[in-house]
Amino acid sequence: MQAHSDSSRRRFLRDASLAGLTFSIPSIVKAAYREEKAKKIALQPGDVVLFQGDSITDAGRKKDEKGSNNTAALGSGYAMLAGSELLLRHAGKNLQVYNKGISGNKVYQLAERWDADCLQLQPKVLSILIGVNDFWHTLTNGYKGTIETYRKDFTALLDRTKEKLPGVQLIIGEPFAVTGIKAVDDKWYPAFNDYREAARQIADKYDAVFIPYQKIFDKAQKSAPGAYWTGDGVHPTLAGAKLMAQAWLEAVKG
Amino acid sequence: MQAHSDSSRRRFLRDASLAGLTFSIPSIVKAAYREEKAKKIALQPGDVVLFQGDSITDAGRKKDEKGSNNTAALGSGYAMLAGSELLLRHAGKNLQVYNKGISGNKVYQLAERWDADCLQLQPKVLSILIGVNDFWHTLTNGYKGTIETYRKDFTALLDRTKEKLPGVQLIIGEPFAVTGIKAVDDKWYPAFNDYREAARQIADKYDAVFIPYQKIFDKAQKSAPGAYWTGDGVHPTLAGAKLMAQAWLEAVKG
Repeated sequence: MQAHSDSSRRRFLRDASLAGLTFSIPSIVKAAYREEKAKKIALQPGDVVLFQGDSITDAGRKKDEKGSNNTAALGSGYAMLAGSELLLRHAGKNLQVYNKGISGNKVYQLAERWDADCLQLQPKVLSILIGVNDFWHTLTNGYKGTIETYRKDFTALLDRTKEKLPGVQLIIGEPFAVTGIKAVDDKWYPAFNDYREAARQIADKYDAVFIPYQKIFDKAQKSAPGAYWTGDGVHPTLAGAKLMAQAWLEAVKG
Repeated sequence: MQAHSDSSRRRFLRDASLAGLTFSIPSIVKAAYREEKAKKIALQPGDVVLFQGDSITDAGRKKDEKGSNNTAALGSGYAMLAGSELLLRHAGKNLQVYNKGISGNKVYQLAERWDADCLQLQPKVLSILIGVNDFWHTLTNGYKGTIETYRKDFTALLDRTKEKLPGVQLIIGEPFAVTGIKAVDDKWYPAFNDYREAARQIADKYDAVFIPYQKIFDKAQKSAPGAYWTGDGVHPTLAGAKLMAQAWLEAVKG
C-alpha cells in the first residue's frame, strides 16, 4: 500500500506540475532534498522536539514563557512555523516542541548554555542551525574564531550531546546567506562557503539529516527576488521563514 | 489534465488514508469543505489580502508595526500562519497581507474602524471572523446586543464594504467554540448556535467563501482532545491556530 501511495503521490505531483498549478516552491524544496540523503526522521508519541540556534531560530521568542508548544515561547520564525505544522500533522502524538535559539549566538555560546537549554530537556529530535555568526562576527564584531574553531566547537558540542543523549535524532541546518542583500557582500566569499561545507560534513559525521538551506534560498530566487526572502541577507522575512519551515518539515516523516 | 490531476489526487488521499499515514487532519479539513460550496478564491498579482476580526485574528499583533507581510504586524495566530503560506505558495505574485483584527471586537466595533482598517487598504480578498464576542459578552460583560444585532450589524458592514469595494472577494469564518473547555459551558447553548448559523446565511447572501470552523474543531477532536486545540474554549492554541490556517487556505486556489 505504501508503494502504491508513493507512486500515486508522484503522479499527482507530476500532474500538478504539468497542469501549471502553483507547486513551484514545494517542488524546489523537494528537488533540493532529492540531492541529499533520503533519510527522514520518524516521530514517536511524546517526543520532545528542540530547535536550537541563533537569531534566525530565536525570532523574537519570549524568553520568560515556559512550557512546550507555547506560541510566544516558539517565536515567530521557522521554528514556530514548522512546530505548528508538526502539531497539526501529528496531533495524536502529544509532541513537545521547544525553541531555545538565542540571537547572536555562535557555537561556543550554545555550549555555554547546553545543559539547561538542551540536555535537560532530553530532546528526541534536536535541530541545530548555527554558523552564520561564527563567520559574520569576524567581519563586524572583531570575533577571532576561525572555520577551525567552528568545526572543533560544533564537533565537541555534538560529542557531548551524543554522550548524554545517545538516541537523539539530529537535524543540522546549513548556514546560509543571500548575496547582494544588505549585510551580505563580496567580503563574505569564499570564506563563508567553508562554514556551509563544514556544517554538511559534520551532519554526515553524526548521521544527522542535513537541510540544504543555501540551495533552497538560491533556488527560491527563481520565484521572487532575494529581498522577498530576507530583509538583510541573513534574517528571513515571513516568506523566508515559511520557506525554511517547509524545508525543515521535509526532514520529518508524515 | 486538471481532471486527471484531481483524480490522481483523490487516489493519493484515499491510499494515504488506507495506509494509515498521518493525513488525518488535512482529510478532516477537506471533508468539512466538501460539504460546503466548492467555490475558491483566485489570487491575482499584487492582491491585498486583509484579515479582520477579534482576538482570535489579532493574536498579539504589534499595532505600531506598519506595512504588509510584516510578521509582527500579522500576530502569531491563524492569520500569520495562513499569510506565511500564501506568501510561499504565491511567491511570484507580490501579495500584500495585512491583519487588522482587534481583541474583544464585536461587529459594531469593526464598523467603527472600518474606513481606516479595511476600506482604505482596498483589499481584493477580505477575510472576516467575528461573532464569538457578540454572543460571549452577553454572558460576561453585560453586552445587550442580540442575534438580531449581530445579523443587522454584519449585514450593514458588508453592504458598506460592497458599495466601496465592489470587486472584493469575501471569506467569512464561522464563529466557533469548543464545548467543555473552560469558558464554554452549557450557558452557550443553544443560543450560540444562532450566531454560527447567521454567519453562514450572511456568507451565502454575500457570495462569500464560508469556512466551517466549528465542524473542523469538532472533527479535530477525533485526533486530539479539545484542550489540544484551544486553551479556553474560544482562543486556539498553536495547534488550533494552524488548524484554522489550514482550513482558511482551502478557501484559496493554489
